[in-house]
Amino acid sequence: MRRAIALAARGLGHTSPNPVVGCVILDAEGRTVGEGWHRRAGGPHAEVHALEEAGERARGGTALVTLEPCNHSGRTGPCARALIDAGVSRVVYAVPDPNPTATGGAATLADAGVDVEGGLLADEAAAVNEAWLTSVLRRRPFVLWKYAATLDGRIAAADGTSRWISSAESRADVHRLRAQADAVVVGSGTARADDPQLGARVTGLTDDEVTQPLRVVVDSGASAVKPGARVLDGTAPTLIAVAEDTDAAHLEGLAPLVRLPRAATGRGLRITALLHELYARDVRSVLLEGGPTLAGAFLAAGAVDKVVAYLAPVLLGAGPAAVGDAGITTLADALRLDVTETARLGPDLRITATPVRHTPHEEI
Amino acid sequence: MRRAIALAARGLGHTSPNPVVGCVILDAEGRTVGEGWHRRAGGPHAEVHALEEAGERARGGTALVTLEPCNHSGRTGPCARALIDAGVSRVVYAVPDPNPTATGGAATLADAGVDVEGGLLADEAAAVNEAWLTSVLRRRPFVLWKYAATLDGRIAAADGTSRWISSAESRADVHRLRAQADAVVVGSGTARADDPQLGARVTGLTDDEVTQPLRVVVDSGASAVKPGARVLDGTAPTLIAVAEDTDAAHLEGLAPLVRLPRAATGRGLRITALLHELYARDVRSVLLEGGPTLAGAFLAAGAVDKVVAYLAPVLLGAGPAAVGDAGITTLADALRLDVTETARLGPDLRITATPVRHTPHEEI
Ligand SMILES: NC(=O)c1ccc[n+]([C@@H]2O[C@H](COP(=O)([O-])OP(=O)(O)OC[C@H]3O[C@@H](n4cnc5c(N)ncnc54)[C@H](OP(=O)(O)O)[C@@H]3O)[C@@H](O)[C@H]2O)c1
Ligand SMILES: NC(=O)c1ccc[n+]([C@@H]2O[C@H](COP(=O)([O-])OP(=O)(O)OC[C@H]3O[C@@H](n4cnc5c(N)ncnc54)[C@H](OP(=O)(O)O)[C@@H]3O)[C@@H](O)[C@H]2O)c1
Repeated sequence: MRRAIALAARGLGHTSPNPVVGCVILDAEGRTVGEGWHRRAGGPHAEVHALEEAGERARGGTALVTLEPCNHSGRTGPCARALIDAGVSRVVYAVPDPNPTATGGAATLADAGVDVEGGLLADEAAAVNEAWLTSVLRRRPFVLWKYAATLDGRIAAADGTSRWISSAESRADVHRLRAQADAVVVGSGTARADDPQLGARVTGLTDDEVTQPLRVVVDSGASAVKPGARVLDGTAPTLIAVAEDTDAAHLEGLAPLVRLPRAATGRGLRITALLHELYARDVRSVLLEGGPTLAGAFLAAGAVDKVVAYLAPVLLGAGPAAVGDAGITTLADALRLDVTETARLGPDLRITATPVRHTPHEEI
Repeated sequence: MRRAIALAARGLGHTSPNPVVGCVILDAEGRTVGEGWHRRAGGPHAEVHALEEAGERARGGTALVTLEPCNHSGRTGPCARALIDAGVSRVVYAVPDPNPTATGGAATLADAGVDVEGGLLADEAAAVNEAWLTSVLRRRPFVLWKYAATLDGRIAAADGTSRWISSAESRADVHRLRAQADAVVVGSGTARADDPQLGARVTGLTDDEVTQPLRVVVDSGASAVKPGARVLDGTAPTLIAVAEDTDAAHLEGLAPLVRLPRAATGRGLRITALLHELYARDVRSVLLEGGPTLAGAFLAAGAVDKVVAYLAPVLLGAGPAAVGDAGITTLADALRLDVTETARLGPDLRITATPVRHTPHEEI
């Protein structure tokens, strides 16, 4: 199963709106005879790839799958059926499929006399599908907020200089996160200050091997993205989110626009509306790249599922902080997280943390 | 030698203005027959303790000492002489004594026919004496700046609440640092906001086993420390640093005062003058406990030798940052550090870092 999870991970960034899935087929003697993973949305599922490699040797064998085999007839046909037809006698899966349109695969297999077992290495398999599982649960994309800051929490110096606070190693790591995300989101302030390109360049991978994320600029007043902006360079799709009442005539033809309602706070667009819009466009994972104002709004909306902080061992004593107003005025209301990992990236520290959810009813 | 270093560490916080030293005596057959460490300033040196325990068995044996044995006749007599008199035939030390009044011990031993070798585990032994060695080199106390902040670099919420940002484990760790420091320093802002007690309470140690640090409040205008302040509670010595031109009559009799020149910047006292004054009072290590304004001034003066940051996995989005103005306006001038250690303390991260020294000529 661990091998199947590793295979699944290869699909990260390529499969939305589908999950990543890995599958290993063992023959009747327990030898690996087929391996597969879901490579891209619209392509064959992991089980189909693995069964193809196994051929007749699958008969009487075992299939190890990271997610409960699907039961629905989508573009590629139900996998439960394919496993039955191949004569597999045992199916072990890690995580049950939470998706109402796909669920029931285990029951179909069992009805056909296949020995079915779920839950093997479920936590590890769920972790690799974290974004997709969260999006199914919350009906909005999984949001990973990353930021690079100094040890004293600054994301730029007093004069606005911010290139580069973090090390080359950290920046390469961000490109890996971009390649795994379906969309990268920044606010108008960042677009204006940095003119970022927001594409993913992954060391060791060719352009063909990287699925570029959708680049999203949240620019209520349609005033930050100008003709010639790097985010419009055509190397990846782009979407500019503007307010419903904004005159954005000068952007027509430059990039697709989406009109969204303004936030109730009066500043910017409604975060929940933005996320629903992205979800409707098959975005299941968002990498929120800031800046601090937009990050504060996402945090206040309870719309951050994971935080990755790159802390550079640098002190500034002045300059904007990593998070702007999130509506928190006293320590008792602070947003608490659990640190799930710390790592060294060159001179920097990477801290991964997950918000502790107190409230069962979120704003979303 | 590793054992000798561990013995030396037991002296931390008790020996200033002397270094911490550990000593192990092996007899002629290589068996440990004596152990000692320098327990407190004015008390016998490590070698004397160890030789006493070894007695006649030291004859023909080896002494392992973390610091080159002293050669001067201070309150306790030169250790080089004591080792020769005890008939030790070999002395292995880790770090040469950089102190001009003590140095020469190795030569004295060699002249007396003792086999002398230096440099064994020198880095480890220097680390345990980091504060003292730095103070000898810089002619001012070693300064360790500690702060507790949120992941977004805040040391308090917008309304000033800051108890407690860090976990109980982190706070216990700070008490350990206080017990190892000769003085704890805070600014008037912290004294005013928090009315801190600044004493050291170490779990597992009785009051007698903890040497309380000198509590120092940098209160230029003599306006922060009021009668009844916890820092005046008598459980540890206290020193209030005020400006030369300040009327501090209301503080006379409450705590010892020291008058210092004002900083050239116009804000507060001159940091170098403060450190020289503390050095003159036998303070070899300072734990700087903030707040952000005073920490910024220390950083700007190049007077921070080590940083210990307790980062709580909490986001606030508002509130004062960990470091106030340190005169840095652009990223190229940022103060760079090397992270030397990261540790988990309960939910928190403890990050230890050392400033990278660029300038050979410091302000001190
Ligand atoms: N180190 C890092 O990781 C990092 C990452 C990103 C940025 N940065 C730095 O951050 C700085 C820019 O930060 P910033 O805070 O000014 O910009 P920002 O967060 O990128 O953008 C803020 C803007 O987003 C728009 N917005 C749309 N919806 C919003 C909502 N619901 N709530 C709040 N704002 C919303 C608002 O402008 P409109 O109303 O005009 O739409 C708002 O002014 C730059 O210096 C950049 O270098 C650093
Ligand atoms: N989380 C933590 O680790 C931590 C630690 C400490 C404090 N805090 C928080 O920090 C806040 C207080 O911070 P703060 O920045 O206002 O106070 P601060 O740094 O403790 O004190 C600043 C004051 O120190 C005096 N000072 C003396 N010499 C100075 C110099 N050379 N440069 C600058 N100032 C000098 C100045 O006042 P005078 O001119 O009147 O002397 C200055 O206003 C409180 O909310 C407290 O809770 C947090």
